[in-house]
Amino acid sequence: MAREESLSQERLTVGVAARLSRYLQVLTQAKKMGRDSISSQEIGEYTNVNATQIRRDLSGFGKFGKRGVGYNIDSLIGEIRGILRTSGQHNIALIGAGDLGRAIASSTVFADHGFHIAGVFDSDPRKVGTQISSLSVQNPATLAEMVREKNIIVGVLAVPPAAAQPAADALVDAGVKIIFSYSDALIDTPPDVTVHRSSPAAALLYALYFHLT
Amino acid sequence: MAREESLSQERLTVGVAARLSRYLQVLTQAKKMGRDSISSQEIGEYTNVNATQIRRDLSGFGKFGKRGVGYNIDSLIGEIRGILRTSGQHNIALIGAGDLGRAIASSTVFADHGFHIAGVFDSDPRKVGTQISSLSVQNPATLAEMVREKNIIVGVLAVPPAAAQPAADALVDAGVKIIFSYSDALIDTPPDVTVHRSSPAAALLYALYFHLT
Repeated sequence: MAREESLSQERLTVGVAARLSRYLQVLTQAKKMGRDSISSQEIGEYTNVNATQIRRDLSGFGKFGKRGVGYNIDSLIGEIRGILRTSGQHNIALIGAGDLGRAIASSTVFADHGFHIAGVFDSDPRKVGTQISSLSVQNPATLAEMVREKNIIVGVLAVPPAAAQPAADALVDAGVKIIFSYSDALIDTPPDVTVHRSSPAAALLYALYFHLT
Repeated sequence: MAREESLSQERLTVGVAARLSRYLQVLTQAKKMGRDSISSQEIGEYTNVNATQIRRDLSGFGKFGKRGVGYNIDSLIGEIRGILRTSGQHNIALIGAGDLGRAIASSTVFADHGFHIAGVFDSDPRKVGTQISSLSVQNPATLAEMVREKNIIVGVLAVPPAAAQPAADALVDAGVKIIFSYSDALIDTPPDVTVHRSSPAAALLYALYFHLT
């Protein structure tokens, strides 16, 4: 227990934090499917991380799978959320109410991990006021106010490449610190803002390499 | 030159291949923006990879940036494509013609990296025959034939979580070896098929950790 506490107070390396996030994604889905336990081999198959690496990462904070049974999913989810300090609910702002924005708002891809879409924004006046899931599309002029009121630190960009930089600028001006962009476009932000991009093509290039060689 | 040749014939590690794919994504976008050269610092800002690591990766195959100028983008793109052996055009099958499928088909996120969407499929009879970009949505019954004819080894899943496994099964039966899924759902495939999943929430959890601590 002492060991566990001390480890969860240490700052994780980028690699460990990234892998724990991916394990958490798999565990959350397995729980949704009604599963109680899961083996390191299975987590490995779903994350493309080596099972030995997974066991090493999890034993680092005192979790050991039972032979023939695996890890208790609920307990592991709680533990990883605690370590990543992301147990709470986080509000996010979604920019873009086109096909992609609609797909994101109606999926559970964020909600499953505690990210609540607090507002959808679009600069197209024809889209403002229309309904997406339970949300009414808003004018970006109201973005800063919502970011302040709902304590939003994450913004998701679902806009065409040419609109990515201005939309990111609006998020940054509003005080958002983490941006996830579905566009490949390069975005410049101040040093205290981090940008993550969806990179399906990069993932495929890399998968293709291992398939072709 | 001899060194470069020998290195590009070696099998890359998973980490290097993944990073090269991400550099390639950034270089491709920078080229689209009309840029001729780029520094390791800039690649680092866009990929969240350390500039020292980038210089090490690139010098490994004989590419050295010029101080104050950086790397020649065209030359680096050609080099990385050669090393990843993904210089050609690759046909992909897109499964799902909903909001997400439409957004994917009308974006250049795959085309920019040499992935050509050869066909869009949907099991909903009301969608079959409708037009998405320049493609007519097809019945999944024709999937295997197209995979054979167009030599498709990559399938992209843009379906709701509950439809992910049956859609993946159809791709696997048709002979597809690499699947990219936009759904979080866990998918079981034979060992010779690799599945990559879009993981926006995992990326955010991980970004949040470094932001909050």
